Amino acid sequence: MSKKIKIVEDILNLNDMKALENRNGFNDTRTFALNFMASPGAGKTSLIMATIEKLKSEYSIAYIDGDIATSIDVDKVATLGIPTIQINTGGQCHLDAPMIQSAISDLDLGHIDLVIVENVGNLVCPTSFKLGAHRNILIASIPEGDDKPYKYPGMYQGVDAMALNKMDVIDYFDFKMDYFRKGVEILNPGLHFFPISCKTKFGMNEWCEWVSNEIKDFKTAATKEYILR
Amino acid sequence: MSKKIKIVEDILNLNDMKALENRNGFNDTRTFALNFMASPGAGKTSLIMATIEKLKSEYSIAYIDGDIATSIDVDKVATLGIPTIQINTGGQCHLDAPMIQSAISDLDLGHIDLVIVENVGNLVCPTSFKLGAHRNILIASIPEGDDKPYKYPGMYQGVDAMALNKMDVIDYFDFKMDYFRKGVEILNPGLHFFPISCKTKFGMNEWCEWVSNEIKDFKTAATKEYILR
Repeated sequence: MSKKIKIVEDILNLNDMKALENRNGFNDTRTFALNFMASPGAGKTSLIMATIEKLKSEYSIAYIDGDIATSIDVDKVATLGIPTIQINTGGQCHLDAPMIQSAISDLDLGHIDLVIVENVGNLVCPTSFKLGAHRNILIASIPEGDDKPYKYPGMYQGVDAMALNKMDVIDYFDFKMDYFRKGVEILNPGLHFFPISCKTKFGMNEWCEWVSNEIKDFKTAATKEYILR
Repeated sequence: MSKKIKIVEDILNLNDMKALENRNGFNDTRTFALNFMASPGAGKTSLIMATIEKLKSEYSIAYIDGDIATSIDVDKVATLGIPTIQINTGGQCHLDAPMIQSAISDLDLGHIDLVIVENVGNLVCPTSFKLGAHRNILIASIPEGDDKPYKYPGMYQGVDAMALNKMDVIDYFDFKMDYFRKGVEILNPGLHFFPISCKTKFGMNEWCEWVSNEIKDFKTAATKEYILR
């Protein structure tokens, strides 16, 4: 049994090492990197597309998509006219740092301000594999229910900001905002929180302003520390 | 590398062996077992509770809940007055056969007609770990979007029936039923398909009738074969 555990540790350590290399690569070229995580169908691709549309005149953006089997998302994002890279995980439930390393080797990072990574739709596994991004983002959505922070604490603890999507349908679901926010606050005090609707564009200005400020902070504050998680 | 692959195989084979033992245990006591899988927030607990409410006068039912961290679901189901067992996976993204084996050792299977297992909310990992249940059930939901069969093919291929929940909000989402059904049909031709709403009880009679008939078939047809998946 100890041998099995040892090997899992080795794999994780190898991943951490590669994540650090990715981080250093991003830092060397002053490229800011975001890792988007969410349950299937929460609206990762929709939010990412809305963000790109809003910010692409100001920043040079590239997109890396992790998907189990299809190119549905990358095909959509490619219509925005930015560089896109597809990672098909072949059944694997998360992206890992070596996959990202391979993807960014195909990008001209020196000319890219922002790399957006879309992880596999999964509220559990992706948090265990650091990618090297500067910020981890969680997208939750109203139809998923207000108990998700309590049920998937690892995800809620492992992110730097979160968007709560599909606010436009809140009247059709029994979603107790106080209960949800309380769970988030217990797990991740002071977490940046953005109620949004990708459909109606509600909250999109605030969200995009935060992303834009994060990029500017990163580009100017050379000594700023980002946790590797 | 070959050593790592070998160990993964060993773990899976150990799981298969335990799943077969679970299956044999269920068969010995003529206990029918269902394994419910879904994305977080699709409505697993809601459908399970509606099913128990409808069938508990006719059948003796027990519930096994797989959850990463909380007892939220098992606390709800326990209000229905049936035996419940909580498995906290401690961060693990799926149930496995040894966990089920441990859980059913605490149940008096000889007096139980139906065991309902609620897996961890995850559209990827649970399909890789057989539990020994006779039928795997997938619950999808309208807000998740119509592209999910294409994006999570392993899940859609690995089930014996599926319910499509939250039909009551279909008008508020851009959900193309033909596209969704086509994806399901490609991956799993002839799959039993139940459009439902746990909120309005739409489709609940058809679904519960199917479950009831499955239990009866199992109890009477001694030679019926069930795939172990």
